[in-house]
Amino acid sequence: MKIETKTAHFSSPLYLESGRILEPYEIAYETYGELNADHSNVVLVCHALSGSHHAAGVYEGERKAGWWDGLIGDGKGIDTRKYFVISTNVIGSCFGSTGPMSNNYSTQAPYRLKFPVVTIKDMIRAQMHLLSDLGIHHVRAIVGGSMGGMQALQFAVDYPNFADDIIALAATYATRPWTIAFNKVAVEAIRRDPRFKHGNYEKDDFKEEGLDGLAIGRIAGHISYLSPDSMDDKFGRNYVGTDGLFELFGRYEVERYMEYNTNNFSRIFDPLSYLYIVKAINTFNLSRGYDSLHDAISRIKANVHLISFSSDYLFFPSEMEHIAKMMARNGQAHSYLEVKSNYGHDAFLVEVEKFEAHIREVLELGIRN
Amino acid sequence: MKIETKTAHFSSPLYLESGRILEPYEIAYETYGELNADHSNVVLVCHALSGSHHAAGVYEGERKAGWWDGLIGDGKGIDTRKYFVISTNVIGSCFGSTGPMSNNYSTQAPYRLKFPVVTIKDMIRAQMHLLSDLGIHHVRAIVGGSMGGMQALQFAVDYPNFADDIIALAATYATRPWTIAFNKVAVEAIRRDPRFKHGNYEKDDFKEEGLDGLAIGRIAGHISYLSPDSMDDKFGRNYVGTDGLFELFGRYEVERYMEYNTNNFSRIFDPLSYLYIVKAINTFNLSRGYDSLHDAISRIKANVHLISFSSDYLFFPSEMEHIAKMMARNGQAHSYLEVKSNYGHDAFLVEVEKFEAHIREVLELGIRN
Repeated sequence: MKIETKTAHFSSPLYLESGRILEPYEIAYETYGELNADHSNVVLVCHALSGSHHAAGVYEGERKAGWWDGLIGDGKGIDTRKYFVISTNVIGSCFGSTGPMSNNYSTQAPYRLKFPVVTIKDMIRAQMHLLSDLGIHHVRAIVGGSMGGMQALQFAVDYPNFADDIIALAATYATRPWTIAFNKVAVEAIRRDPRFKHGNYEKDDFKEEGLDGLAIGRIAGHISYLSPDSMDDKFGRNYVGTDGLFELFGRYEVERYMEYNTNNFSRIFDPLSYLYIVKAINTFNLSRGYDSLHDAISRIKANVHLISFSSDYLFFPSEMEHIAKMMARNGQAHSYLEVKSNYGHDAFLVEVEKFEAHIREVLELGIRN
Repeated sequence: MKIETKTAHFSSPLYLESGRILEPYEIAYETYGELNADHSNVVLVCHALSGSHHAAGVYEGERKAGWWDGLIGDGKGIDTRKYFVISTNVIGSCFGSTGPMSNNYSTQAPYRLKFPVVTIKDMIRAQMHLLSDLGIHHVRAIVGGSMGGMQALQFAVDYPNFADDIIALAATYATRPWTIAFNKVAVEAIRRDPRFKHGNYEKDDFKEEGLDGLAIGRIAGHISYLSPDSMDDKFGRNYVGTDGLFELFGRYEVERYMEYNTNNFSRIFDPLSYLYIVKAINTFNLSRGYDSLHDAISRIKANVHLISFSSDYLFFPSEMEHIAKMMARNGQAHSYLEVKSNYGHDAFLVEVEKFEAHIREVLELGIRN
């Protein structure tokens, strides 16, 4: 697949849940496959905290594929021979959509900490504008995992007639303190890092090594994406080097993994964007704006497909099951699948083969419980 | 109880597992109750990562009791009218025993990063010297939770004839990568903190506010001491303040808890000590020095009592059960109790009423499976 990132510009204001306005704003996005004549084959894909609109394919001259390349493509679970897939970058991101390091139109300087807090509701409202701009007023399905699953569920509640099917993986109905606590490590580590300069760092300050605070916070993130068993399988008690057990900073394999991955991450991700997206995750609550969670869920008209992972230590299967049970009591069309996995939360990214067939079926047959 | 801390001085060398020597060294300790004539009523108590020898009672002029005051005292589970309780501070600590900020005798300056790595095996070897010094060559029981449980189990393996009963709570047979990963947050946050100065900070630099890196690392610690359900019960999704949901640094109740507790901790705990004690936890492995875990466990002659907590997310019940099963297959005297709890790992500190009767029975009757 030849992949190109597009950017849509909006000069009309985006009204945010906070009451503030974002104006103007941009949304980066990619598309895979072809839109059919009656616009009835659109699948919208939503990304997670560390993701971007680059969900599938490989950019010219690069080797690493998009984050869901195993699921999206010709003949794959989300078959680009049949579906026109749109993957958009969330508002607040550092990968092309308007975020805290974008220029504030009125001052011609980056927003930094003056960027408004954005929520999952705001993210999908922005996406609605993009789709409307593309002439798409209804989609076949909306699919996403983790924060992407939050967006998919929020679409189901806020825009009940917009999608036939909602497929949400490894998500929840409202972020629990457990997850907020994991995010708190990053918030404090970034905020207290002297090089963060209260948000006034220069854009290129960290190019080479990244911000320590972001790397440190990301270690907590990686813990929550794995599981005790997956770490046993992946690392065991292996020690890096042969005779360093009694060196204070000698490292176990799991420690090397954390260093390697988090340092790589902090080199490419913007610290302010991380704070804003984490805030959007922390404030996620399907019931906000409605009388109750039951009231919110009752609005849903789409067929909702919930996929959880047995070893997910970030968003536990019981959280997705809670939504399924509520929909069952309401007699609403839905399906619930708990995938047996050792991979923890990351399973939605790395064990695509375990739910690919299920997603294919949902898209082709619209299966339900 | 009137409590006084004593300090024992040793001028003979402590031979460490690393091959290095600590000489001279000191051990801070407290005792509760009276030693009987034939020295047969000694109970040794071992503390966890953040603990000290101050396990019970209240210091003159202070209000806060020792960390296991609910369990140790007159008429309590470990009844000080019957038992002579000795609680010692581990080597490496910052609360009175020789640690990285103690003066190196040969240079008359603090060891800092030149302090040798100490292990759980080293900690209990030091305690053996103390007890020997006090004329105690056999104890009724050794009790400890978390890192204290590791010490109790290590005593059982390394000194099979030393104790009648071993009571280990919320511990494991070898630290898994899951726990090492949680500790890694602290290691990196401390190590990368500019005020840590590669270990060359001045002792009083952080008196007022503590080292940020330690506070940040401690957030990860607190996550692992709680559980998703205990956080729901304790904090819910309550937000601090009434209209700050859309402020970037506005805080949920769980975030305030983390800030409050971790800032308090970083004010009193020494960062280098934290690194060294975390290293001792990471390297804990009952089988080290023996052919296998089975070989190590088979050496045990004491009656071993294992107590786990159903919601422990740091050392899972299955880890304690693993030891119980091995002892059962070997026909070794032991008991295993899984306490139903919502409190996570912290239950061994905060839900004493759930296992107090069990410990009382063990000490009085020596119950076994």
